[in-house]
Amino acid sequence: MTNQLKEYFQKWKKIVDQGLNTYLPPSSSNTILKAMRYSVFAGGKRLRPILVIAGAQICNLDGKKALPTACALEMIHTYSLIHDDLPAMDDDDLRRGRPTNHKVFGEGIAILAGDALLTYAFDLIAKNGKMLGQNCPLAFVVESIAQGAGFKGMVGGQALDLRMDKGRWLKQKPKKQIEILKKVHESKTASLIEASLVSGAYLADAGQDKIKKLLSYGKKIGLAFQIADDILDLIGDKKLLGKKGSDLENKKLTFPAIFGIEKSKTKAAQLIQEAKEELKVFGKKAQILKDLADYIVERTY
Amino acid sequence: MTNQLKEYFQKWKKIVDQGLNTYLPPSSSNTILKAMRYSVFAGGKRLRPILVIAGAQICNLDGKKALPTACALEMIHTYSLIHDDLPAMDDDDLRRGRPTNHKVFGEGIAILAGDALLTYAFDLIAKNGKMLGQNCPLAFVVESIAQGAGFKGMVGGQALDLRMDKGRWLKQKPKKQIEILKKVHESKTASLIEASLVSGAYLADAGQDKIKKLLSYGKKIGLAFQIADDILDLIGDKKLLGKKGSDLENKKLTFPAIFGIEKSKTKAAQLIQEAKEELKVFGKKAQILKDLADYIVERTY
Repeated sequence: MTNQLKEYFQKWKKIVDQGLNTYLPPSSSNTILKAMRYSVFAGGKRLRPILVIAGAQICNLDGKKALPTACALEMIHTYSLIHDDLPAMDDDDLRRGRPTNHKVFGEGIAILAGDALLTYAFDLIAKNGKMLGQNCPLAFVVESIAQGAGFKGMVGGQALDLRMDKGRWLKQKPKKQIEILKKVHESKTASLIEASLVSGAYLADAGQDKIKKLLSYGKKIGLAFQIADDILDLIGDKKLLGKKGSDLENKKLTFPAIFGIEKSKTKAAQLIQEAKEELKVFGKKAQILKDLADYIVERTY
Repeated sequence: MTNQLKEYFQKWKKIVDQGLNTYLPPSSSNTILKAMRYSVFAGGKRLRPILVIAGAQICNLDGKKALPTACALEMIHTYSLIHDDLPAMDDDDLRRGRPTNHKVFGEGIAILAGDALLTYAFDLIAKNGKMLGQNCPLAFVVESIAQGAGFKGMVGGQALDLRMDKGRWLKQKPKKQIEILKKVHESKTASLIEASLVSGAYLADAGQDKIKKLLSYGKKIGLAFQIADDILDLIGDKKLLGKKGSDLENKKLTFPAIFGIEKSKTKAAQLIQEAKEELKVFGKKAQILKDLADYIVERTY
């Protein structure tokens, strides 16, 4: 990670955390709010909100003016983790070394806390729209996020992942396996990363040429990010990841499961290279997003 | 039900059903879409979408121009039923006489189908914003729906209901029981009914005076609607309701459980009377909403 990127992350992570703390005020009496806060403040990197801010900045909007939407994306990401960890889905007891939401609050409240985070995200996006007034194409912001998170995006990817879990993907022909793998990763992970960047750009009232470049960059780093995550699952410290079983034990459909670690690393590196090339149109303003792309695969070295 | 209201419901239910069928196209290959359609087309009355349309019309917008948002409200209502029926919540095997979503598709897909419906709702609201252009205060539309459906509204009410279920409310003092009961009903049921009416009014770019009247009308009919539902649960045909156990058997916190059937009927009738009075500002345009208010309690006679 370059020093510039490190400072950028430190600065904006702090601002995002403050934003989340304001939007989700501590409460001793409201169970649902407690459950929402528990998972939101479980130590995430805040990658998605920082991508919203970077997407806004690269299109010439002050990053702070995208803060409600940035926090909204973190809430959507968190809700997806809470629901993903449920017994009916991945059935994980631990996340980042801490008990998962349903282990602490029970399944019913965990489902509702996820629902509430997803719903509150759109409230915050609306707040951002009010803040920016007439110049903000709010319909495009809402649409890009709803589509990225919805049945054609993240939720669709999770559903396909669920259908293919416990080794069920092994029953498909090799060519079909690769097709499914790409579809799962693009929709489960890349979609929300794309939506983060693009919603920031829309808040900045960016033109379609820039939106398209950020979409393409987002899809590529999103895919590389998931490949890197799957490699880390194989080579990383289990305690650090805080997961119950490895993807290998769970017979998960992943890039390294099909292509092996070396080929997966090469694929991720290639995607990062391509992603950075998409940013030429932004000139010097692209440095943070270029460094961020490199950082995604660095984690696996 | 007056003839005029009957015709109105028939006309708009058909249009809403067509809208839902367009937005959720039949699919043989996409499991998540199949699960979404299964519950959306399970025979609902389409009360909430019709309230969106009526809210728009009473504020002088062509009802069809509110159709995407109307369909969005039905999707939010449907998602709440799918999640509510889950084993971790009400644990219902049947709804309207048919197996519940998780009984057909499994818990994981049912959770995701709910998530997808909630997310898609905001996509449709954005579409409506695009359709109406600059004159539509989209931020207010999104905000009213997200708040009505969120942790201060519907989801918050469900969480409180869950915490008080299986007779746990009986441990509270009588005064506190009534307080909780009112809070559960206002947030669980009335909030989304208010949001339906008000989002329609915002689509019509209505002023705050009209919004306030519709909010108050919505809160009152929403509360009366829930009281009526609870009375029906006690006196109605179980097969018709398609539920597993009665509220009485489940020791649910309801109006008739605390006040008895007669007092509950009087309370509902009083709320309806008050609700209709809120509509004076709309003159003759208010007839449909007045008839609808009456219909809500008529069901219990």
